[in-house]
Amino acid sequence: MSYNTFGHMFRVTTFGESHGVAIGCVVDGCPPQIPITVEEIQRDLDRRRPGQSKFTTQRQEADRVKILSGVMDVDGRQVTTGTPIALLIENTDQRSKDYSEIKDKFRPGHADFTYEAKYGLRDYRGGGRSSARETATRVAAGAIARKVLPGLNVRAALVQMGPHKIDRANWDWNEVERNPFFCPDAVKAKFYEEYLDDIRKKGSSIGAVIEVVAEGVPAGLGAPIYGKLDSDLASAMMSINAVKGVEIGAGFHAAELHGEENADEMRMGNNGPTFLSNHAGGILGGISTGQAVVARFAVKPTSSILTPRKTIDKSGADTDISTKGRHDPCVGIRAVPVGEAMMACTIADHVLRHRGQVG
Amino acid sequence: MSYNTFGHMFRVTTFGESHGVAIGCVVDGCPPQIPITVEEIQRDLDRRRPGQSKFTTQRQEADRVKILSGVMDVDGRQVTTGTPIALLIENTDQRSKDYSEIKDKFRPGHADFTYEAKYGLRDYRGGGRSSARETATRVAAGAIARKVLPGLNVRAALVQMGPHKIDRANWDWNEVERNPFFCPDAVKAKFYEEYLDDIRKKGSSIGAVIEVVAEGVPAGLGAPIYGKLDSDLASAMMSINAVKGVEIGAGFHAAELHGEENADEMRMGNNGPTFLSNHAGGILGGISTGQAVVARFAVKPTSSILTPRKTIDKSGADTDISTKGRHDPCVGIRAVPVGEAMMACTIADHVLRHRGQVG
Amino acid sequence: MSYNTFGHMFRVTTFGESHGVAIGCVVDGCPPQIPITVEEIQRDLDRRRPGQSKFTTQRQEADRVKILSGVMDVDGRQVTTGTPIALLIENTDQRSKDYSEIKDKFRPGHADFTYEAKYGLRDYRGGGRSSARETATRVAAGAIARKVLPGLNVRAALVQMGPHKIDRANWDWNEVERNPFFCPDAVKAKFYEEYLDDIRKKGSSIGAVIEVVAEGVPAGLGAPIYGKLDSDLASAMMSINAVKGVEIGAGFHAAELHGEENADEMRMGNNGPTFLSNHAGGILGGISTGQAVVARFAVKPTSSILTPRKTIDKSGADTDISTKGRHDPCVGIRAVPVGEAMMACTIADHVLRHRGQVG
Amino acid sequence: MSYNTFGHMFRVTTFGESHGVAIGCVVDGCPPQIPITVEEIQRDLDRRRPGQSKFTTQRQEADRVKILSGVMDVDGRQVTTGTPIALLIENTDQRSKDYSEIKDKFRPGHADFTYEAKYGLRDYRGGGRSSARETATRVAAGAIARKVLPGLNVRAALVQMGPHKIDRANWDWNEVERNPFFCPDAVKAKFYEEYLDDIRKKGSSIGAVIEVVAEGVPAGLGAPIYGKLDSDLASAMMSINAVKGVEIGAGFHAAELHGEENADEMRMGNNGPTFLSNHAGGILGGISTGQAVVARFAVKPTSSILTPRKTIDKSGADTDISTKGRHDPCVGIRAVPVGEAMMACTIADHVLRHRGQVG
Repeated sequence: MSYNTFGHMFRVTTFGESHGVAIGCVVDGCPPQIPITVEEIQRDLDRRRPGQSKFTTQRQEADRVKILSGVMDVDGRQVTTGTPIALLIENTDQRSKDYSEIKDKFRPGHADFTYEAKYGLRDYRGGGRSSARETATRVAAGAIARKVLPGLNVRAALVQMGPHKIDRANWDWNEVERNPFFCPDAVKAKFYEEYLDDIRKKGSSIGAVIEVVAEGVPAGLGAPIYGKLDSDLASAMMSINAVKGVEIGAGFHAAELHGEENADEMRMGNNGPTFLSNHAGGILGGISTGQAVVARFAVKPTSSILTPRKTIDKSGADTDISTKGRHDPCVGIRAVPVGEAMMACTIADHVLRHRGQVG
Repeated sequence: MSYNTFGHMFRVTTFGESHGVAIGCVVDGCPPQIPITVEEIQRDLDRRRPGQSKFTTQRQEADRVKILSGVMDVDGRQVTTGTPIALLIENTDQRSKDYSEIKDKFRPGHADFTYEAKYGLRDYRGGGRSSARETATRVAAGAIARKVLPGLNVRAALVQMGPHKIDRANWDWNEVERNPFFCPDAVKAKFYEEYLDDIRKKGSSIGAVIEVVAEGVPAGLGAPIYGKLDSDLASAMMSINAVKGVEIGAGFHAAELHGEENADEMRMGNNGPTFLSNHAGGILGGISTGQAVVARFAVKPTSSILTPRKTIDKSGADTDISTKGRHDPCVGIRAVPVGEAMMACTIADHVLRHRGQVG
Repeated sequence: MSYNTFGHMFRVTTFGESHGVAIGCVVDGCPPQIPITVEEIQRDLDRRRPGQSKFTTQRQEADRVKILSGVMDVDGRQVTTGTPIALLIENTDQRSKDYSEIKDKFRPGHADFTYEAKYGLRDYRGGGRSSARETATRVAAGAIARKVLPGLNVRAALVQMGPHKIDRANWDWNEVERNPFFCPDAVKAKFYEEYLDDIRKKGSSIGAVIEVVAEGVPAGLGAPIYGKLDSDLASAMMSINAVKGVEIGAGFHAAELHGEENADEMRMGNNGPTFLSNHAGGILGGISTGQAVVARFAVKPTSSILTPRKTIDKSGADTDISTKGRHDPCVGIRAVPVGEAMMACTIADHVLRHRGQVG
Repeated sequence: MSYNTFGHMFRVTTFGESHGVAIGCVVDGCPPQIPITVEEIQRDLDRRRPGQSKFTTQRQEADRVKILSGVMDVDGRQVTTGTPIALLIENTDQRSKDYSEIKDKFRPGHADFTYEAKYGLRDYRGGGRSSARETATRVAAGAIARKVLPGLNVRAALVQMGPHKIDRANWDWNEVERNPFFCPDAVKAKFYEEYLDDIRKKGSSIGAVIEVVAEGVPAGLGAPIYGKLDSDLASAMMSINAVKGVEIGAGFHAAELHGEENADEMRMGNNGPTFLSNHAGGILGGISTGQAVVARFAVKPTSSILTPRKTIDKSGADTDISTKGRHDPCVGIRAVPVGEAMMACTIADHVLRHRGQVG
């Protein structure tokens, strides 16, 4: 049972609401003696932090992380001890806002109606538990996960906004940190600037596709049949707020391919087996091949928009709602570091699971 | 840890290799007093059984299921007892085939290389554990899962083969059982017949997209944050052999939508809240809305093809391989009942989980 | 995998070291709409708090608990929301003590050697993660667990100290709160006062036996075969620091009984089936009978004693060690509220699990 | 959730009723390339098999085990493949007995009433799922578990029958296989012969205490706080039918000891750290010390006895019941190999869990 826990051996349990006292997570099962500093975790958090450009919500959260446990000083180095690592981020921007508008109305596209249907109540302040704010704790946990497998390199990028895909010929990882969209195509990033600003000004929103690439993953990770690496990645990515689709390697495009085109041929290389292509996205039969693991996920447009939408209220009466205030015109942007974190956590978990069974 | 177990409260553990003594599963956690007969399970298995048309492998498996435990006669009715239900399917078509060709070579697109990389050995006979044969046990478990939630109706259909999508205006569920493709569009089914026969004759293969629809799912199922209904569905579908992508509702198309288009508006209906569209695929914030739950998954083309492909052997030498023998030109077809089974198992699990927490 | 998590549906994950920043826990899976206040949790914590008599460690911890998430105000009442409840207790009495003595020596009876053997390092400050301080978070979680099943009444008492058992004829639950030993026998409590004071003055320590009784548990809780209620209680009690034995009902005494003596006979009562005795401790076949659930556990003497003991240090040299400072002469005393908490958590978990499967 | 599954990484799922078609288990997560033959498994099963002396039930079950999956021939050796190992034992002695007597009456001390209370029905034939017959599958799984850790030696013995304890000075492991009681004390075994025969003839029964000892367990196994080795052993032993108490090392006797007596002192030996005693039973802080792991469990007397006992029937009427037929006068005897199996499975699980986290 894992309502708020992700992973089996490298386990992340998160807690906290958007406008509560604090959010945080407990990372359990992390190997001991891994060097980790609060600064490293903060660095990842800062990449996700809102309010860094006009293209993300203007909510001002310092998002300062504290390590409460599981890390100690050994000869001047901060290292993990093998016991649970608790991370805490206090909520500082809890405006005493007027929530009367959304308190009793269900915002279309949001989890308002479903939380109410499930629990009989909901924390309506800023989305409560269903707020994307929870993803900050994933990013914090991911910073630790990245260090479990030496040589692991997890990066992500926005590869599509609305119908506009990047030109893969322009892919430059360095470009990702140079624009506010985590976009690896400088030309398209330029285009997005105007495109998204227009959407933002209209109080509208747009969807996106994010690609996550993990390099340095050895062959052999993943545990068939129901612990497949791709199965767990699908679960990981789909658990991110607003995600509606996940694919591995060729993904949905594989449906259009013939067997000859899709199967990645092999040849012996200087450093072991090599593949001549990577339609598989680095995973065959649920187990990593040693190639880069490639996952992609689709993020729906932000549901908080200015245009009034039809809805009902808690009493069952028909009404309309429009959401004013601080919102991301494209939540897909801030999902980029979150996708990295989920990839890192999934791989860290499988490193430990594989080592456990196979040694 | 769930290498070969799916689900938390409604738990399915499967076992068996393609060419071993038997395959089977243990369904644990099933509520007591649910009427279930071996005939009902067999009926679902027969839909998946190979060799029923020229478009599926000609392997002849009777796939006769036996109930070993967990079901007893009460006043002439077979009902579950609440204890584990073990189901067994003996392998009858274990041809004493010559495996020398594939024993030492890694078939591109198959799990040969990765199983060997992980375990240091593999059961090369018919794919061993990674064979699609394992999915028969999922279908058997799914037959039980369907009965956990009264009123649940889970159906699936093939909606795309290669680049050829069905025309949704032609959708007729009755049509699904009338053609060998589980295709709801009679016109497209006619087209597929010639299209796939051509591929089959060439010894090639093609991918497909399957859509699974669950009706009768009440609002409130699904457990945020890491036990979201869509997260578990993504894991479930991605665990099916050859699946490379999963989407919910609008799925990847949601990336192209504006907030106004994507959010499903609400109005009060005669029987409670209604939605004016279903881009969400019946799930918001990881919790079911009461609308139909809609998932889609992409199946890659069968990797066993006649055209020789470059590969290496266990000694590390470059070589070529082509796969002769009985294979599905489009494995996506037989994935249709498997997708239904995974949907049913996921929902059954969430029914019990929800009832446990919320009552 | 549950290194630091207890329970399946009512899940408690704890974190924190004795002398770190804070300790705490995350309670996941708790049903929504359960009224709970920070004062109720504090009340239970205060019963366990050290320094309340000369018979417990003089460490001064305020043990003030904070609720970080999962509880909200609904019409003036604090209620659970169904999302994770995070509880935090800051460590305030972190004396800048000199740890050089125990930093490199393994204290016999403590977890020093084993943590070092497992992780290659250990937090030597006050026992780190293996400190009994962790049990404060269990008590906090237990305060919530108690409220999951209306009518549940969980109480515990010290029934033996050293070789001195209480006289069960004197059992008075009210007496438990009147002496510093949680002892239900006033006469024996009087005796313990002098007995333990003598042990304390000598810098020695002594073991104890605690009995936990849960009333108001309906028949039907517990899930055979490996989720038996008694199996989970055994695990729960044995997980408490210094516990070396657990028994249910007649326990080890059952080994001495004949079948005629042991089996609890039944008769029909006015309010349903009644039992004429309770050797079973309220559990048959792993499932509750509706009688009081009775568990007992043995606590070894505190390992921190004044008398020097032979040991080795990290370099492998033979040496001696004696522990000065603030320690409990009988850790069994403070285990009483912890035993209650573990009983409450186990039952809450099984209430949800039972409801999930059976409805 | 693990109703019928034991373990986390080395997972055993069992199924089957006493008088159903078959019983069996699925062992998941076992490392690959471990040599195991059906004969080795059968050998362990034969030790537990009933009907081998007049002191165990005369039920005649061949208990022939079949391996259905997960083991393959590699160069003439049977080895595990890393995929699930399914083991099947068909029920051959399903007498068409008249169950009308127990069908509607609840046998005191049995699980009849509680299964009925939980599930609303029960398989009354021979105890159904709650029959000790299920333990055969544990023994089969244990035979595999024993091989996971090279050098592991798990043995058990009956150390008390009724009030009669063995003389530990007489302990001889060789003696265990020479008498029908698995008793290591030849003198006491002689005594038990007459003692138990008398009980048997009277149609009565008696309890027992079993001790399980695991040698060759390295320091470092066990995962605090809720995955402690002793916590999991307590759960494992308490899950065995009729067990009412579990203790580790000094166990309940530790309650009577002073700190000076209880703490196991250390000295540096030629092959690393040594302990001068083993009150801890090889476990400190939930982690193995490298000493022998010692667990003891109490088995209640068989509830099926000839003397009529008061009970009620399903209609709620008062009645009497006495159990005729084939029963063990001391079920503790056959619990000896079961205790070994549970110890082996617990340790195998922790070997993999430890290796996973720490490497």
